[in-house]
Amino acid sequence: MGELGIGLIGTGFMGRAHALAFRNVSAVFELPVRLHLAALADADRQRAEHCSAAWGFARAHDDWQRLIDDPQVDLVAITTPNHLHFPMAMAALQAGKAVYCEKPLAVSVEQAEQMQQAAKAAGVVTRVGYNYQHNPMILQAKALIDSGELGQILSFQGEFSEDFMADPHAPFSWRCEPQHAGGALADLGSHLLAMARYLLGEVEAVCADSQTVHQQRPASAGSQEQRPIAVDDQAHALLRFASGARGTFSSSWLKHGYKNHLSFEISGTRGTLAFDQERLNELRLYRAGDQGFQRLLAGPALPGYAAFSPAPGHQLGYNELKTLEVHELIMALSGQGHGGTDFAEAWQVERLAAAIRVAAREQRWVNVNAV
Amino acid sequence: MGELGIGLIGTGFMGRAHALAFRNVSAVFELPVRLHLAALADADRQRAEHCSAAWGFARAHDDWQRLIDDPQVDLVAITTPNHLHFPMAMAALQAGKAVYCEKPLAVSVEQAEQMQQAAKAAGVVTRVGYNYQHNPMILQAKALIDSGELGQILSFQGEFSEDFMADPHAPFSWRCEPQHAGGALADLGSHLLAMARYLLGEVEAVCADSQTVHQQRPASAGSQEQRPIAVDDQAHALLRFASGARGTFSSSWLKHGYKNHLSFEISGTRGTLAFDQERLNELRLYRAGDQGFQRLLAGPALPGYAAFSPAPGHQLGYNELKTLEVHELIMALSGQGHGGTDFAEAWQVERLAAAIRVAAREQRWVNVNAV
Amino acid sequence: MGELGIGLIGTGFMGRAHALAFRNVSAVFELPVRLHLAALADADRQRAEHCSAAWGFARAHDDWQRLIDDPQVDLVAITTPNHLHFPMAMAALQAGKAVYCEKPLAVSVEQAEQMQQAAKAAGVVTRVGYNYQHNPMILQAKALIDSGELGQILSFQGEFSEDFMADPHAPFSWRCEPQHAGGALADLGSHLLAMARYLLGEVEAVCADSQTVHQQRPASAGSQEQRPIAVDDQAHALLRFASGARGTFSSSWLKHGYKNHLSFEISGTRGTLAFDQERLNELRLYRAGDQGFQRLLAGPALPGYAAFSPAPGHQLGYNELKTLEVHELIMALSGQGHGGTDFAEAWQVERLAAAIRVAAREQRWVNVNAV
Amino acid sequence: MGELGIGLIGTGFMGRAHALAFRNVSAVFELPVRLHLAALADADRQRAEHCSAAWGFARAHDDWQRLIDDPQVDLVAITTPNHLHFPMAMAALQAGKAVYCEKPLAVSVEQAEQMQQAAKAAGVVTRVGYNYQHNPMILQAKALIDSGELGQILSFQGEFSEDFMADPHAPFSWRCEPQHAGGALADLGSHLLAMARYLLGEVEAVCADSQTVHQQRPASAGSQEQRPIAVDDQAHALLRFASGARGTFSSSWLKHGYKNHLSFEISGTRGTLAFDQERLNELRLYRAGDQGFQRLLAGPALPGYAAFSPAPGHQLGYNELKTLEVHELIMALSGQGHGGTDFAEAWQVERLAAAIRVAAREQRWVNVNAV
Repeated sequence: MGELGIGLIGTGFMGRAHALAFRNVSAVFELPVRLHLAALADADRQRAEHCSAAWGFARAHDDWQRLIDDPQVDLVAITTPNHLHFPMAMAALQAGKAVYCEKPLAVSVEQAEQMQQAAKAAGVVTRVGYNYQHNPMILQAKALIDSGELGQILSFQGEFSEDFMADPHAPFSWRCEPQHAGGALADLGSHLLAMARYLLGEVEAVCADSQTVHQQRPASAGSQEQRPIAVDDQAHALLRFASGARGTFSSSWLKHGYKNHLSFEISGTRGTLAFDQERLNELRLYRAGDQGFQRLLAGPALPGYAAFSPAPGHQLGYNELKTLEVHELIMALSGQGHGGTDFAEAWQVERLAAAIRVAAREQRWVNVNAV
Repeated sequence: MGELGIGLIGTGFMGRAHALAFRNVSAVFELPVRLHLAALADADRQRAEHCSAAWGFARAHDDWQRLIDDPQVDLVAITTPNHLHFPMAMAALQAGKAVYCEKPLAVSVEQAEQMQQAAKAAGVVTRVGYNYQHNPMILQAKALIDSGELGQILSFQGEFSEDFMADPHAPFSWRCEPQHAGGALADLGSHLLAMARYLLGEVEAVCADSQTVHQQRPASAGSQEQRPIAVDDQAHALLRFASGARGTFSSSWLKHGYKNHLSFEISGTRGTLAFDQERLNELRLYRAGDQGFQRLLAGPALPGYAAFSPAPGHQLGYNELKTLEVHELIMALSGQGHGGTDFAEAWQVERLAAAIRVAAREQRWVNVNAV
Repeated sequence: MGELGIGLIGTGFMGRAHALAFRNVSAVFELPVRLHLAALADADRQRAEHCSAAWGFARAHDDWQRLIDDPQVDLVAITTPNHLHFPMAMAALQAGKAVYCEKPLAVSVEQAEQMQQAAKAAGVVTRVGYNYQHNPMILQAKALIDSGELGQILSFQGEFSEDFMADPHAPFSWRCEPQHAGGALADLGSHLLAMARYLLGEVEAVCADSQTVHQQRPASAGSQEQRPIAVDDQAHALLRFASGARGTFSSSWLKHGYKNHLSFEISGTRGTLAFDQERLNELRLYRAGDQGFQRLLAGPALPGYAAFSPAPGHQLGYNELKTLEVHELIMALSGQGHGGTDFAEAWQVERLAAAIRVAAREQRWVNVNAV
Repeated sequence: MGELGIGLIGTGFMGRAHALAFRNVSAVFELPVRLHLAALADADRQRAEHCSAAWGFARAHDDWQRLIDDPQVDLVAITTPNHLHFPMAMAALQAGKAVYCEKPLAVSVEQAEQMQQAAKAAGVVTRVGYNYQHNPMILQAKALIDSGELGQILSFQGEFSEDFMADPHAPFSWRCEPQHAGGALADLGSHLLAMARYLLGEVEAVCADSQTVHQQRPASAGSQEQRPIAVDDQAHALLRFASGARGTFSSSWLKHGYKNHLSFEISGTRGTLAFDQERLNELRLYRAGDQGFQRLLAGPALPGYAAFSPAPGHQLGYNELKTLEVHELIMALSGQGHGGTDFAEAWQVERLAAAIRVAAREQRWVNVNAV
């Protein structure tokens, strides 16, 4: 059995989520390779060393390029702020390493396109962290759609709303900067767009509307200084899928009461299904002829769930979706699977988001392929 | 105490709903006038007489003009097929009678406009049957919005979906004819547009998309003959309210699993509320700072509910919303209230629906006042 | 078509609910007889006359015996305080009149037994107002059970909780007096016991526990004077059904948050169903092999619902359950049905409640037939 | 910083759950000690070695006594079949090692009592795996109760139902043997009893009923051979708490539709809360004066949640409750906490279950302290 050396850049919340996933995946799954937690990088050396020890990595770096160059590192996982995804991923690809990059792929469509071309040229496995798609309930949703059990798909209503910026006094952060891929559409909406594409395929055309409700925010918590805000607080769109399905899209970080409301309803000629990330272990399903919706609960009939528990009702958590994503990645790296979002697909997600931005700015329908 | 003579045209489901409401309203409320069920009209004389007796009307007519001319009739209630609303209401207005017309007001914006002008000229009370607005929970929603408890309103997500045409073999009916105000947008969507205006005021501009999914249907149940369908099966739109709020709108009669899913979420700078007509005695409310949504249940603190029951949890049904609507109408006729949708407002609803149709046809944003 | 003269005693909330039901039933259903609202009685003459006019009764009485003696009255409906049920029903039976009495049948098992014997001797139709059983969803529940779709029934978990006495300062009322059938068990619990018997048949043995939490209450709202309380605030029991099913029972009027929580879960060898009166148009059903519970929604496939609306999702309200109960009563009076709770069955409900009281007092299992 | 050597016995589902928890706890929390995964034992040497490597343990044993004797092992974690808990824990205590034993503590009250005495004599930290109590939502529930926000607690309705034995052809297993602590009461109910004691304290007296519905089952899946079943399929009880609260208890493994329905409602003089393990990240709360229940969602305001995620709505899974339990254990071992269930408390849970068994067998109220 071969060995796969993992190099992880970043030690924030997502860095730890990756670390936990890499630690757990070999205890949860029978893997075709042995994982070696080779190196961890953080610009702050002390933090790099502390986390490296706590999370079980062999080596700590304070220079990410050295991690990429480390011969023990086969896979580079990138969990740094968004604007660093591009230089890090490009360097890793240049070094011929596989790349696992957090979403969004980049801070502009142009960057994203370059990255997907570089990935193609390098011929390595790439993945982007759209972990919500690895939820067994989402796999079940996709199976229901692909098997035709819902008939021809007619409509999609999708919404990703949270309320972490609902307070007008919530301070400015990198999420408020367009050049860091900030804004409700980029930060939240892109998850929903990736999900829509994953489940229903290409979106052909969009019309949209977006708004910066709070046009300035304190420079930092409690500060008197105000900074102007350029990114959207909420965005709404109409979607036309290549398949003929039509629908609506909403994303907001001002919507009180919602904490992780990545939700959708998909309806076809034979049934309807509904999902809400705030109850990630459930799916609501209606089949033509039923008297009402059924609430499907995750259980071991779904392989991704069975890996974690032999009993239904035990529920998976957010961090376990990350473990499932890493498992798919490792299978792909072992030539035994192709699940997950690669750079080419992540670029398409960025294009779709960009098309929504153009449509909102120019107040007209936009053909996505023209972006 | 004066007497108010009621003349009812139509004996279908809505005719009976009106009859029940007129019978009940005086037992449920202390009214400022005595109601007299003066006359019932149906083109089928036998049916007119049968229903007249069963429902307690004094006289039966098989000619609606004679009902309008009947000196005992002060108020004309119209529950006939949509294309008859115009001639009947115009005749009643001409006779100087108050009019209570089922929705939609008319089968075209032009008719609707004429009707509202005639109503203005006649100077009588008019009302249109948007009974969902008389639900005490909707009144509570409006009070929450108007009092500022939700802060400045930022977004509206509305959907009215049912599935009674989801079966491609569901036969052709008047609901499939544009000249009878058929289609999901006119039949269902107009309720939602009326609700959106009631709660949030003017919609300034719309962009929309609509679709006829099943382009032909059997001429009648089981028939081999197919008839082409011109009306929409589903419609989606973006809404820009004059207040600055933005949002989405969906209406469909193909969406499996939904039976009466007139639903919306309204979010402001201080909270969010959500409603679904399939649970008409409930409202979900989140106030900034809460740990989660609260499920408000109808109870006697709401006057419209207290009229029916002194105890919470007893729940109102659809027919009781009609009684509440009739109560508002009678109060208006007695000069003691102005609740409910008059012809002027109903015309605005028709204009808004028409703007959505134009936007969908021409695939562009449409200014509602330009329609 | 014959005529049936209705005499109604009482003008409180239940009196009006009866009046509304008698008024509506002939508009909602095709009845085999013509109803005549012959007489209304209330000890307060002015109120009797006012309500009589408002509700459409032909005559008003201030002496209930005269109403019973009125030759126009065929059916005597009793909606007075509980302790008056006995004398009124006995007088009506003695006069050979059919009787429709609100629940509870009486204020003691002894009275109830006498009443059912008198009813038997009189040979007339009797009914007691357990209107929750006439909910179409409950009929569907019963059909699911009786058809064997749930298999052999194994368990029952029932609870009827409200919170209208939760405030320790809620004042003393007749509901606090044992001689008026007060207490959570008699007032609320009896509905649940009637439901349990209706759905699952005889209860053979019970063990129970009950408690008076607030041992005194203000004599009236805001009063300094305290009155001692003898009735139970909450009661819990174990039930053994003759069929072999086992279960739990709870009733409380102190349970915050519940307004009309008459709820149960019934589980068998092939499925489980659940109901909550706070969502009376729904039923939750799980069939062996399903991935989750289905939420059944009331619709016109259920005859009791179809009488009110041709469209699903319209929802029935509390008052319409009363109309359904009255319909069953009229069908029984016309020799065309036997639905509903007669005096013999209502006596059994009282015995069961009495057995629970004995079991709680003596802290032992009690055989219901021994009470 | 000192080091703590972990020895784990057992490699089944619970063995892996422990292993994952011990691996994750140091990445999720800042611990006062360094954990060393010293040894893993399984009677099957090959499996011991395989799991030891996959899960990151330093050494594998096929003899659990040698693991206990291993000087590198400070804490012995026991995840073997129930009847082995006693000999293993007693040996570990004798060796002066801390013990972390899966529930139930033992297969008889006598054993449990001996174990808690041995623990007391050894003076070491002991814990038993009632991981559901470590859910941050349960900690919030306990805080709500202990702070008096619900007022004086009046009632408890608890149920733990699943359906994994609902099929009469589900085969015999150790769970069907009384000497292995089988039966719905011991297997499921004990979780609920532990929870009831954790939240509301001592239960003074019980009355109960239990049933073996399927009196024989196939010896193994598909086998013709039938084995008689002696353990209960469902049990119901009344509970009287020392605090004065009263309530009901149900446990079943035959209840179709439920997969992990450890649920309860607790009501006091100022509010009610409700929980269901099938939605473990939620709590329903009603405070006196509210218009309805609030659905509380887990978030980083709860420390146990914050350890895993800085964002609300991310949801914890079953396995993370185990990590939280292990964290409490390690804090206790470091003298910095006392959370979790020790042997003394686990013995009380066993006594309570035994009292229910006596009450059911003898059909009478039983004083728990007399067992």
